[in-house]
Amino acid sequence: MQTATPLHPTRATPRIAIVGAGLAGAACARTLASSGAQVTLFDKSRGIGGRLSTRRTVWTDALGVEQPVQFDHGAVGFEAHSLAFQAVVQQGLADGWIAHWAAAGGDHFVAVPGMPALCHALIGSLDVHVHTGEPVTGLHRIRGGWQIERNSGLWPGRFDQVVLALPPAQAAPLLRPHATGWSEAAAQVPMQACWTLMAVTDTPPGPAFDLLQPTRGPLASIVRNDRKPGRQTTPGHAVWVAQASAAWSASHLEDHPAGVSKALRDALRAAINPGGEVRWCHSTVHRWLYARPARVPLGTPGCWWDAARGLGVCGDFLVGAHAEAAFLSGLDMAHAVLSAPATRRTAGSGAARFART
Amino acid sequence: MQTATPLHPTRATPRIAIVGAGLAGAACARTLASSGAQVTLFDKSRGIGGRLSTRRTVWTDALGVEQPVQFDHGAVGFEAHSLAFQAVVQQGLADGWIAHWAAAGGDHFVAVPGMPALCHALIGSLDVHVHTGEPVTGLHRIRGGWQIERNSGLWPGRFDQVVLALPPAQAAPLLRPHATGWSEAAAQVPMQACWTLMAVTDTPPGPAFDLLQPTRGPLASIVRNDRKPGRQTTPGHAVWVAQASAAWSASHLEDHPAGVSKALRDALRAAINPGGEVRWCHSTVHRWLYARPARVPLGTPGCWWDAARGLGVCGDFLVGAHAEAAFLSGLDMAHAVLSAPATRRTAGSGAARFART
Repeated sequence: MQTATPLHPTRATPRIAIVGAGLAGAACARTLASSGAQVTLFDKSRGIGGRLSTRRTVWTDALGVEQPVQFDHGAVGFEAHSLAFQAVVQQGLADGWIAHWAAAGGDHFVAVPGMPALCHALIGSLDVHVHTGEPVTGLHRIRGGWQIERNSGLWPGRFDQVVLALPPAQAAPLLRPHATGWSEAAAQVPMQACWTLMAVTDTPPGPAFDLLQPTRGPLASIVRNDRKPGRQTTPGHAVWVAQASAAWSASHLEDHPAGVSKALRDALRAAINPGGEVRWCHSTVHRWLYARPARVPLGTPGCWWDAARGLGVCGDFLVGAHAEAAFLSGLDMAHAVLSAPATRRTAGSGAARFART
Repeated sequence: MQTATPLHPTRATPRIAIVGAGLAGAACARTLASSGAQVTLFDKSRGIGGRLSTRRTVWTDALGVEQPVQFDHGAVGFEAHSLAFQAVVQQGLADGWIAHWAAAGGDHFVAVPGMPALCHALIGSLDVHVHTGEPVTGLHRIRGGWQIERNSGLWPGRFDQVVLALPPAQAAPLLRPHATGWSEAAAQVPMQACWTLMAVTDTPPGPAFDLLQPTRGPLASIVRNDRKPGRQTTPGHAVWVAQASAAWSASHLEDHPAGVSKALRDALRAAINPGGEVRWCHSTVHRWLYARPARVPLGTPGCWWDAARGLGVCGDFLVGAHAEAAFLSGLDMAHAVLSAPATRRTAGSGAARFART
């Protein structure tokens, strides 16, 4: 649907706030803005993308030269099984912001130059207002609409609808004053944590690989990040993103990062140079508290939507443990908002009755 | 979403057949084609539009001159209460294929120059194949897909999915071999018939009006078709579309058209020139067997969709008794198709498991 500017004077442009600018929020924003809604996207992080994230930093080599490096430390890639997401991927392949990642023979993709490029592209050409760097701390009902509160105060202006596209544990406190049942349900959604190691080493001996999935030990997956398409490379060096298993992450959830880093580096070394040594040029760890849903019960709706109040919730936790699930939930959310009555029906007018009976 | 051409070699473009090119079918086709599906639209009528229809003919005036005239003999207009349909209406107002119809004070719209212009515009710029003039008489399962049968034979080529966007009584026989439950449910949907009078008269005395809704007698509504925006006018003459009530239409369903025409002309005359005479320049009647759903039970889904077989059903009868209901059902149908897995999941590959667990 093309972007349409409201022309008829009695049609006020609906103002919609989306809290959370991950893939669910971006997909929802794209569809709503494409239909002429005025969308404002809030995110607590510095940039958008959520778990489609790429961390950029530098490390200092043996000659004292700073080397840029990037780590896709959230979702390592994505697949596209639905027509809707395939259409996005195909557009991205054509435009160059998605590349095929031949990691393990399947149809896997990454965004280029970094994972957030997918969310940027989704809303790129649309008039979506994006406000990052500060969490939303409260939702307030006001004159049939909503106000958004952040630490810096109330956001000026009223929204007709609010969509929460957050991990459920973060949506729960915002929902509590308005939808107790939803708040409790969101708080109880089981999400798995994920300790993630980002490291630069000398290139290990042996054949290069893109992806390794150890069957024992703390690590569930090891990705050669610099072998993904469109990523920076440094000759003689290898860039790694290694994710701990859900079980290991859970049992070490509150460990000190230094201890976690040591354990994950040991596991990475054992995997990439068994019996040998590894020279560490750079390493750090990140803890995802809400990496992925542990399970999605059958029959779960693709989003939650209260048309009367104009309040919705979406996210991968309602669809599945993969990036496309977030996209589909965001699309479902937008579809629910777009299909709901947006204006009061003029049931008293003759022609309205005429058109209906 | 922009039109996207599949680029990745393993992604075959899905081929989708939509049977019925009314507003539900056109809305579904638009959304699917916008996401890169190859859509083929079938309709038994000469043109698309379904009940968004405008009949064009000529009548001969007192001087023997043929005068062109048009009658919107199906839906007389439409409203837009959802953001999704409002976006379409706003685009149409901007582009000139929709006009505001100030019939009775509410926000009512008509397509310009005739009602089918709405469906034409929905699919206009997209690569949708349209085949009209012959009914679809059968659906056949073949190698995990579908073939379409018409009186002239099997349509060449296979479809991955089939969507029926027909009045339920017409969908029922096509569904019977494949979905007995749906077929029975469709056959039992109560649809109201509507006898419709199209007439040209001398301009009656008294103040002109756009719309009249008699509270007694056979007629439920009388529209001055030539006072709608963008319609042809003939000085000194009035163009009428008069719809009989559901009750009157039901009790005269099998009457001879001549008798129906006489009864409806009498009722029209009594309404537009009470106690006086009317000079008839032209008149004809049309019987809509399936004009509108009698009722839509609460909790009815917006469409029926069997993802495993790739078979769907949509139409106003699932949403409500107005044009927007057809649009929303078609949109819901497209959303269901787009969100369903379109390719087999490569569950055996390492990376697929990796992306998911």
